[in-house]
Amino acid sequence: MPSSLGETKKGDFMIRIGIFGYGNLGRGVESAIRQNSDMELAAVFTRRAPESVKLRTEGVPVYHADKAAEMADKIDVMILCGGSATDLPRQTPEMVKYFNVIDSFDTHAKIPEHFEDVDAAAKESGKIGIISVGWDPGMFSLNRLFGEAILANGATYTFWGKGVSQGHSDAIRRIEGVADARQYTIPVESALEAVRSGANPELTTREKHTRECFVVAKDGADKARIENEIKTMPNYFADYDTTVHFISQEELNEKHGGIPHGGFVIRSGKTGFELENNHIIEYSLKLDSNPEFTSSVLVAYARAAYRMNKEGMNGCKTVFDVAPAYLSPKTGAELRKELL
Amino acid sequence: MPSSLGETKKGDFMIRIGIFGYGNLGRGVESAIRQNSDMELAAVFTRRAPESVKLRTEGVPVYHADKAAEMADKIDVMILCGGSATDLPRQTPEMVKYFNVIDSFDTHAKIPEHFEDVDAAAKESGKIGIISVGWDPGMFSLNRLFGEAILANGATYTFWGKGVSQGHSDAIRRIEGVADARQYTIPVESALEAVRSGANPELTTREKHTRECFVVAKDGADKARIENEIKTMPNYFADYDTTVHFISQEELNEKHGGIPHGGFVIRSGKTGFELENNHIIEYSLKLDSNPEFTSSVLVAYARAAYRMNKEGMNGCKTVFDVAPAYLSPKTGAELRKELL
Repeated sequence: MPSSLGETKKGDFMIRIGIFGYGNLGRGVESAIRQNSDMELAAVFTRRAPESVKLRTEGVPVYHADKAAEMADKIDVMILCGGSATDLPRQTPEMVKYFNVIDSFDTHAKIPEHFEDVDAAAKESGKIGIISVGWDPGMFSLNRLFGEAILANGATYTFWGKGVSQGHSDAIRRIEGVADARQYTIPVESALEAVRSGANPELTTREKHTRECFVVAKDGADKARIENEIKTMPNYFADYDTTVHFISQEELNEKHGGIPHGGFVIRSGKTGFELENNHIIEYSLKLDSNPEFTSSVLVAYARAAYRMNKEGMNGCKTVFDVAPAYLSPKTGAELRKELL
Repeated sequence: MPSSLGETKKGDFMIRIGIFGYGNLGRGVESAIRQNSDMELAAVFTRRAPESVKLRTEGVPVYHADKAAEMADKIDVMILCGGSATDLPRQTPEMVKYFNVIDSFDTHAKIPEHFEDVDAAAKESGKIGIISVGWDPGMFSLNRLFGEAILANGATYTFWGKGVSQGHSDAIRRIEGVADARQYTIPVESALEAVRSGANPELTTREKHTRECFVVAKDGADKARIENEIKTMPNYFADYDTTVHFISQEELNEKHGGIPHGGFVIRSGKTGFELENNHIIEYSLKLDSNPEFTSSVLVAYARAAYRMNKEGMNGCKTVFDVAPAYLSPKTGAELRKELL
């Protein structure tokens, strides 16, 4: 390993990226690659009929997912854009046999198990698999780690939103009589202020976030029943102050078509021999497009995976294991001169 | 290197820390070590008469700086708490011959030269020297790197304050007729808001920060002249909107005795095929004690230096080269389970 990781030279040729799964995330990766001059989109893989998939990038082939393994020598890093529920637990350990891979696995409780599966396969193939990349897990996780490593005596708070929760929106759509729905998770401003004050408050679920739902009811549906089913839904809404608005499909499409999100990670800690000094570290995101921002993080970590593997590293990694210099196309000397 | 850096086990024994230089920063390191159960303060080194230095920690020896080299086998990481102007350029390359070292070298323009000096000595000794650790350079530098690596199309803004600038306070004290002074650097709220709006404004020095000075004049001194000399001082004040308040020494001691600081690093960037989506990443610090927070960062990086060197790494590093997992006393498995 070089004295300074950043000394790693940029690839002599472009980093060849593959996209596995062409939904919101895959399209986000496609657009993010255009902003990074040291990368090129080599191919897109889909489980649909390849000829039915139209890319935004000229001259890039679309193959069926089954053909991926045959492209092992044409792709440096495969970015897996499937879902955490059923796709990634199978796809990441499988794909890392052939490629360095990046995924955005976000089922927090199952991360240790996923890590072990990917690590075993990656060590055998000699590739790197960086899992759970994005903003939470991802950049928020990093800030939780930095916060408690620096301010050992303190408390960490994570708030999400204002933003659209896909899972909660889907849960509403499954209710009988609901045609469409969009749910926003909203942090409670007074809770944020209490945390920023350094008071280290104990906050209940209800005190931290509220939930706002915009629902399109089918003709003749019982809106009172729908609203009640939403507000009493266990895990999803019962523990929150939830408001429900019934609107038309037109209004939903017009005013709630975007996928914004964001949030806050705040570390509040004390220093000094009598713990007399308080410190607040706050990291926040305000995102117009949740999938496009997540994709931008995935692409930066794809660069890291390529460079770390080139230096001989392999196995499963998370954002905790990646030295920041690997994320930037700049050399260590450039980073020290321009950003340090 | 282990598959996951975080897998590094905690030291079988405590990490033995040495403090070189016992001023505000050194005392901050001393108090920070108390909050980290895997570390112990092994010794303090000073250029003053050792018997004249009274520590806050019982049973820790104080030695003259000249004796440091003799302690090579008793200290795992030496934290250098001297100044960037004359101390660190000599001390860091010298001390890294015997110890893993951490410094907070903050003369941005001279970082590349300092890096080369420390790197040469560290490679020869097989030790690690992590330089320019703190919050700027340090945590702010990391956020500048993360911001531009993730949002390749965008602009980065750094604001400092509200906080005490030691350098500017000293500059005022050098003016004839000034008994004492304290200078606050204050970010302009409207500039912060313009940046957060995603407008990517071009901001002049004057538009980003204002400077507020609290001055104690000597008896009979010409306050009008002092105020004019402050406001027209090149580099320090001439390019800023500066306000000067004359107060008594008592009021200065009572209301302006602290050393608070902080600031903001904001990355504003666009994604999407038509760059139609905007994103704001904001990192901010609100610090009651600038030296104690800086010390807390130094101590976390001392843990990283110890563990990285134990894994065989050597040479000069910066915060860009340190995988975040090395900063935490938790194992990789604990980090993935609790923080990812």
